[in-house]
Amino acid sequence: MSDADRQALDAYFVSERMRHLEEYRAFLRIPSVSALPTHREDIVRAAEWVASAMRSAGVPTVEILPTQGHPIVYGAWPAEKPGTPTLLLYAHYDTQPADPLNEWTTPPFEPTIRDGRMYARGASDDKGNLFLTLKVVEAYSVLYGRPPIGLIFLFEGEEEIGSPNLQACIQEHKERLRAEATLSADSVMWAHDIPSLVLGSKGLIALQIDVQGAESDLHSGLHGGLAPNPLNALTTILGSMWALDGKVQIEGFYDEVRPLSEQEKAEIAAVPFDEASYARSIGLAAPVGEQGYGPLERNWARPTLDINGIWGGFQGEGSKTVIAREAHAKITCRLVPDQVPSNVFAAIERHIQTHCPTGITASVQQTAGSSSAFAIAPTHPVLRVAHEVLRASYDRDPLLIRLGGTLPVADYFQQDLGQDIVFLAWSMPDEHLHGPDEFFRLENFDRGMRIYADLFERLSEQWDS
Amino acid sequence: MSDADRQALDAYFVSERMRHLEEYRAFLRIPSVSALPTHREDIVRAAEWVASAMRSAGVPTVEILPTQGHPIVYGAWPAEKPGTPTLLLYAHYDTQPADPLNEWTTPPFEPTIRDGRMYARGASDDKGNLFLTLKVVEAYSVLYGRPPIGLIFLFEGEEEIGSPNLQACIQEHKERLRAEATLSADSVMWAHDIPSLVLGSKGLIALQIDVQGAESDLHSGLHGGLAPNPLNALTTILGSMWALDGKVQIEGFYDEVRPLSEQEKAEIAAVPFDEASYARSIGLAAPVGEQGYGPLERNWARPTLDINGIWGGFQGEGSKTVIAREAHAKITCRLVPDQVPSNVFAAIERHIQTHCPTGITASVQQTAGSSSAFAIAPTHPVLRVAHEVLRASYDRDPLLIRLGGTLPVADYFQQDLGQDIVFLAWSMPDEHLHGPDEFFRLENFDRGMRIYADLFERLSEQWDS
Repeated sequence: MSDADRQALDAYFVSERMRHLEEYRAFLRIPSVSALPTHREDIVRAAEWVASAMRSAGVPTVEILPTQGHPIVYGAWPAEKPGTPTLLLYAHYDTQPADPLNEWTTPPFEPTIRDGRMYARGASDDKGNLFLTLKVVEAYSVLYGRPPIGLIFLFEGEEEIGSPNLQACIQEHKERLRAEATLSADSVMWAHDIPSLVLGSKGLIALQIDVQGAESDLHSGLHGGLAPNPLNALTTILGSMWALDGKVQIEGFYDEVRPLSEQEKAEIAAVPFDEASYARSIGLAAPVGEQGYGPLERNWARPTLDINGIWGGFQGEGSKTVIAREAHAKITCRLVPDQVPSNVFAAIERHIQTHCPTGITASVQQTAGSSSAFAIAPTHPVLRVAHEVLRASYDRDPLLIRLGGTLPVADYFQQDLGQDIVFLAWSMPDEHLHGPDEFFRLENFDRGMRIYADLFERLSEQWDS
Repeated sequence: MSDADRQALDAYFVSERMRHLEEYRAFLRIPSVSALPTHREDIVRAAEWVASAMRSAGVPTVEILPTQGHPIVYGAWPAEKPGTPTLLLYAHYDTQPADPLNEWTTPPFEPTIRDGRMYARGASDDKGNLFLTLKVVEAYSVLYGRPPIGLIFLFEGEEEIGSPNLQACIQEHKERLRAEATLSADSVMWAHDIPSLVLGSKGLIALQIDVQGAESDLHSGLHGGLAPNPLNALTTILGSMWALDGKVQIEGFYDEVRPLSEQEKAEIAAVPFDEASYARSIGLAAPVGEQGYGPLERNWARPTLDINGIWGGFQGEGSKTVIAREAHAKITCRLVPDQVPSNVFAAIERHIQTHCPTGITASVQQTAGSSSAFAIAPTHPVLRVAHEVLRASYDRDPLLIRLGGTLPVADYFQQDLGQDIVFLAWSMPDEHLHGPDEFFRLENFDRGMRIYADLFERLSEQWDS
C-alpha cells in the first residue's frame, strides 16, 4: 500500500469517526440474543441492519438467507481481475444473553462510552469486529470505487448458540462461498498491545441434565428419610465427575485425546503467560486446574467440563423445609483434537446413569452447539500475510496461539469447503465477553480498520495463487 | 359431656357451617407468608384477623404482642372455679411460601372447594386447625356463656421460619402462660381414618452455603482450565456429604445420636407402614433412605440432611458457555434426641471447609430455625385424656407415633415453662403441606371441633390435679 493510499484511508476513518460511532451504537442497541426465543424479532432486525450497512458500504450483492433458525446475511463483491485473490469474511451479529442484569454498570443494550471504551453486550463479541470489516469496505468504496481483492461476506446470527444452521447453509451455497481462505472477524487477540494469530481452537458439547424424584414437592419432615431428594442426587452425580486435582473422573473422557507433540509443547511454551497477573485480573490468588499441565496447556490443549448453570428447589430468602421434585444442570465440555463430540456425550451420559441414586430418574439431553476442535498449519499463505501486517502495525511478531474457546465455523469451512480459516479480530481477553460490563476498546476501532485494509492490499499485491 | 350438650354443640356447628366456611376462606385469602419480607403487611393483617375472630368468639382478653419479627396473638379466658384445669392453645397463622405457583391447580391464596376439600396455601398447615379451636370456643360462648376449662391462646406468625421470636415471648410473659399443659393445634394425624398421638418430633438446623470463584462471570473458553468453577465446586462439596447408601458422610454428624431403646423400637414397629402404598402416594416404586433402618425409624429416629434449594449460573433456555462467579445452596437437617444443633452445624461447616476446592471461597451461614428434638412420656395425664377422646370418636385406639417434622415450640414450652405439649390437630400427611395444591378435608371441620369440645369437657370432669 502506498503511503498516499494509507493516508487517504486514515483521513477517511478520522473524518467519519463520529458517524461510525453512532452507527456502531445503533447496532449495539439491538438486543440480538440468539439463545432466547423472546429476542427472535430483534435478531431479524439485526440481520436487516447488517444487510443495510453492507449496501451502504457499496457491496453489490447482498442477500438475507433464511435458515431453520436465525437468518444469515450474505454478500459478494467479486474480484475485478483474474488472479486477484478472494477472501470470505465471516463474523456474527448475535450476542450472548445479558443476565445477570443487575451486575451491569449501565444497561447492556444502552451502549455507553466510558474511558475510551464502548460498554454494551456484543460490543466486543462480535458486533464491534463485524462493524469494522464493513467500514473498511465502505472506505475503499468511497475512495477507490471498490476493494483491492474479491470479498464474500457471511454474517450469521447463531454463533452464540453453536451455529446450528451454518453448516447446512455452507453446504447449500457451496459454489457462492469459494475463496482462497476464510477470514474470521470473530476472535480474541492475546492482549491489547500484543498481536497474535490462532493455530487452533477447542471443540464443544453442551447438555442439560434433569433429575426427578417424587411427583410433587414434599415436606422434608413428613418425607425425610423416605423420599429421594433430587437436589442431593444431582450433587452426588455431578460431584462424582471430577477429582479435587481437577482431573475429570468420567470413564472414557480422555480416551481419544491426541497427546501434544514435542513441537506443539514448544510452541505453547514460547507464549508468555503471567500467572500472577492473570489471577489478579479475575480477582484470585492463582489460576487453578488439572494437575500435571501448565496453564496454557490446560486452556488450549486439555478438555474441560464446566457446569454453566444449576437450579432446583427454594431460592428465596430464609429457609424452606422442602424436598423439591426436580433439579437441573447445564454442562458444556471443551474438546481437543481427535475427541469425537458424540463419543464424549455418550461417556457423560453413561456416567450420569451409573451414578444416579435409587429412586431418582435422570435424563440427559444434548443441546445445540456440538463441534470438533480446529487446527491450521503455521505455514498457510494467508496466515503468513496476516503475520506480516500485524508485525508492521505492532512492530513485533504476533504470538502463535491457540484458543480455549470454540469456533465451530472453522470446522465447517474446513470440512465442507476445504477452506482454511484465519482469525483476525480485536476482541481482548479482559473485555468481559459473555459477562456483565462487556466492552470494546475504541483505540482498536482505527487500528482494526487500518490492519484489515493493509491485509487486503498485501494479498492483492503478493498473491501468487 | 351429656348427650344433650353434645347435640347442642353439633347443631350449632351444622347451623353455622356456611358462615364458618366463609370466615375460613377469608382467613386463607391473606397471604401470610412469613419467610418473605414482601408479605410483612399480610402477616400483620392475618394477626389482626385472628385477634378479631377471638374477640368475636367471646375471649375476654385479647392482645397482639409485638416481637422482633412477626406479632404473636395472645388471649386468656381464665377458669371459673379453682381446681378446673387450664390449657394453653398453640397454633400458627403464618404459611409457607407458595412457589412454584404454576403447579397449583387454583391460585394458592384464592381458596377453592373441590371434592369436599378446601385448596389453599395454609388450608391444612395451620390455618384450618387454628380456626377450629376458635369456633369451638365460639360455640361454648354462645351456648353456655364460657368454655368448661380455662384457656390461654398463643398464636404465632413465625412457625414456618422456625419460631425465632417465640422463645423470647414465652420467657417475657411466663406468668401469663402457665397451664396444666400446652395443646398444640399444629400437627399431622396418621391418616384421615386413623387417629394418632405424638410422642416426639425432630430437631432442625437450617443453613445456606455460598461459594465464590472469580470476581465476575467468565467465558468458559477464555478461562477454561484456569479459573475455578463455583458450580463444579459446590457439587463437589455437597456430593461428598452422603454415600449412595443414604448414610451422611460428614464427620461427627451421628456422634451424639441417642440409639433407640428396645422399647422405642417396639413402639415404632407397632405402627403399621405400607411401603408400597406410601411410595405410590408420591409416585415412586419404593421409599428410599439410609440402609439398615426401617422406613419409620428413618423418618422418626434418624437424622437427615436435605438440600432444599440450589442455584447458580445460567438457568434460561439453550446453553451459555459461562463460568459463573458464585453458586448457592440451602440445607436443612432434621435432628433426633441428644443431638445438639450447634454441634451439628459446626460439623457441617468443617466438612464444607475441608472439601472446598482450591481457588473457591465457601461461606456458611446458619439461618433461623434451630431447634432440639422433643419427646413426651406416654403416661402424661392430658395425653391420656386425648387418647380417650380419640378412641371415642374413631372407635379405635390412636397410634402412638413420632414426627419426622420439627416442632420447636415443644422444646420452648418444655424448657421455659416446664410444660409438656400434647399435639392434636387434623392435618393429614397427604394434604400437600408445604407443596403446591395444599388442601384440608372439610369432613374434619366438624370432627375436629367435636373432639376439641369433648377433650375440654373430659378434662373439666376428670381433672384431679
